[in-house]
Amino acid sequence: MLQNLPDHSAIEDAHKRIQPFAHRTPVLTSSYFNHKTGASIFFKCENFQKIGAFKFRGAFNAISQLPEEDGKKGIVTHSSGNHAQAVALASKLNGYKATIVMPDNAPKVKVQAVREYGAEVVFCENTTDARERSARKVIEETGAVFIHPYNHPDVIAGQGTSAKELLEEYPDLDVIMAPIGGGGLISGTAIWSKYINPEIRVIGAEPKWADDAYRSFKSEVIEPVLRTDTVADGLRTSLGELTFQAIRLHVDDILTVSEESIIQTMRDLWERMKIIIEPSCAVPLAAILENDLNLEGKNIGIILTGGNVDLDNLPFA
Amino acid sequence: MLQNLPDHSAIEDAHKRIQPFAHRTPVLTSSYFNHKTGASIFFKCENFQKIGAFKFRGAFNAISQLPEEDGKKGIVTHSSGNHAQAVALASKLNGYKATIVMPDNAPKVKVQAVREYGAEVVFCENTTDARERSARKVIEETGAVFIHPYNHPDVIAGQGTSAKELLEEYPDLDVIMAPIGGGGLISGTAIWSKYINPEIRVIGAEPKWADDAYRSFKSEVIEPVLRTDTVADGLRTSLGELTFQAIRLHVDDILTVSEESIIQTMRDLWERMKIIIEPSCAVPLAAILENDLNLEGKNIGIILTGGNVDLDNLPFA
Repeated sequence: MLQNLPDHSAIEDAHKRIQPFAHRTPVLTSSYFNHKTGASIFFKCENFQKIGAFKFRGAFNAISQLPEEDGKKGIVTHSSGNHAQAVALASKLNGYKATIVMPDNAPKVKVQAVREYGAEVVFCENTTDARERSARKVIEETGAVFIHPYNHPDVIAGQGTSAKELLEEYPDLDVIMAPIGGGGLISGTAIWSKYINPEIRVIGAEPKWADDAYRSFKSEVIEPVLRTDTVADGLRTSLGELTFQAIRLHVDDILTVSEESIIQTMRDLWERMKIIIEPSCAVPLAAILENDLNLEGKNIGIILTGGNVDLDNLPFA
Repeated sequence: MLQNLPDHSAIEDAHKRIQPFAHRTPVLTSSYFNHKTGASIFFKCENFQKIGAFKFRGAFNAISQLPEEDGKKGIVTHSSGNHAQAVALASKLNGYKATIVMPDNAPKVKVQAVREYGAEVVFCENTTDARERSARKVIEETGAVFIHPYNHPDVIAGQGTSAKELLEEYPDLDVIMAPIGGGGLISGTAIWSKYINPEIRVIGAEPKWADDAYRSFKSEVIEPVLRTDTVADGLRTSLGELTFQAIRLHVDDILTVSEESIIQTMRDLWERMKIIIEPSCAVPLAAILENDLNLEGKNIGIILTGGNVDLDNLPFA
């Protein structure tokens, strides 16, 4: 099925749909990081979003638009991360049954969170192939609707609502940044930001160990992720056709950063801003600090993606 | 010197003074804790305040009111905690030199933070006597002004501005809660809350291991803290004459909680709300959960005091 990128009006509609159910997350600033970069940085705190990550926006937008006769057959996805919880909660809020395919080595706390939202968990081997096969089986047996974590126009439109809120509060941003995993967040962010202000620079950031979007951006074909061991566990995925298209059309640059930078910046964000963020959140700020960009005097928006970490297993402990 | 409690207009004036320099901290909610308590809880996040704690409000209010000829002689206090950083930053912002007496076993990170704000650190033995003697020595030598951490009307008025902001946003609170250390925060909170609405219940909370305010409240004389090993390191101090007076006049009840409750609730707040809070912050919510209060359907404000923790030494790690 050929799909089109959502436009700004799809993001406006998404915002109307999710507003009664999602948090309008706060924007925090830090004189420490402003001083350190010479810029004014506005952190959009999606770690305070429902389920602890921006993923709720996209999942809710997609699921709430399903025709009721489709939704009643159930919702299915495969994920061991934030998308799993997002689909579980968004399904519950819409009165639909969700089935989440998770690898059998998924952290117990994530499995438990998904079950708390009323979803059924189906375990499989931890390979892309096994996950897809398990999800297909659920679809064949029940007719359930599959919700892709990023390569889906309604998901991209939902993720764009975070940048919409940020730009409503801070319309004078010169730069807006987000990390890139599968590309759903940067796609929605870029579509909205360029619609509001074509002059705004949209910059993605990635770990050097998962720099597939950076390489794809340069080579102009989708390049796969080559290793999956970056500490930024939310960014280990490759782009989809749709998100790659959005990046080519609307993203100005992609920066990459070292693991050491990510971990140090994550710790600094915890200590200075008193917020719990996932390693992925630290990637854009780490990119500013590591790449010595000339951002003196600029207004920079950074979307902090989520705060779901295992407190017993912190990378800087 | 006989001192009087500040009244509501002193808190209004304090608010005008600090607003250009302090963060108006966000108020966060959590469907998890609402569900768990049956109440609607509004968390006022002073962990996001300047220097990472509410203490900035009181210190700034006191220091900014000093006659310039006094302030020019310098500011002095003794503290190894948040008050040290608060006095250091508030002095700097007013163009005054601060000297902070700290115990020679104070954590390096706290010493460094105080120095980053431009204050001079004087070390002494870790006894109340040695601290007071060292501070007196600075005063005798320089004429510096001593800023008490809580038993000071301008400090109490400053601390009351947090409740003022919370009640401006949520005027329908049935209950407002804060932890009690020296009593500055609960005093300012109670004075403002009862002025705005005499029906509001003001409830203090303490660790059982530092239940001096609870015992003082019952016996009607100031009782000393008997042990100083509670994990809630911000609450190891005894009341002063002024704060005791405010508590007797305006506080409805004081609850106490176990160490286990504090640590578990602290961890739950980190995991569920994605915020970094000190152990002291967890005490009021732990008191609600441990004491099985009948708060079904009530609107409850809780002031989260600060977020300065040592990430390498967490109580639940």
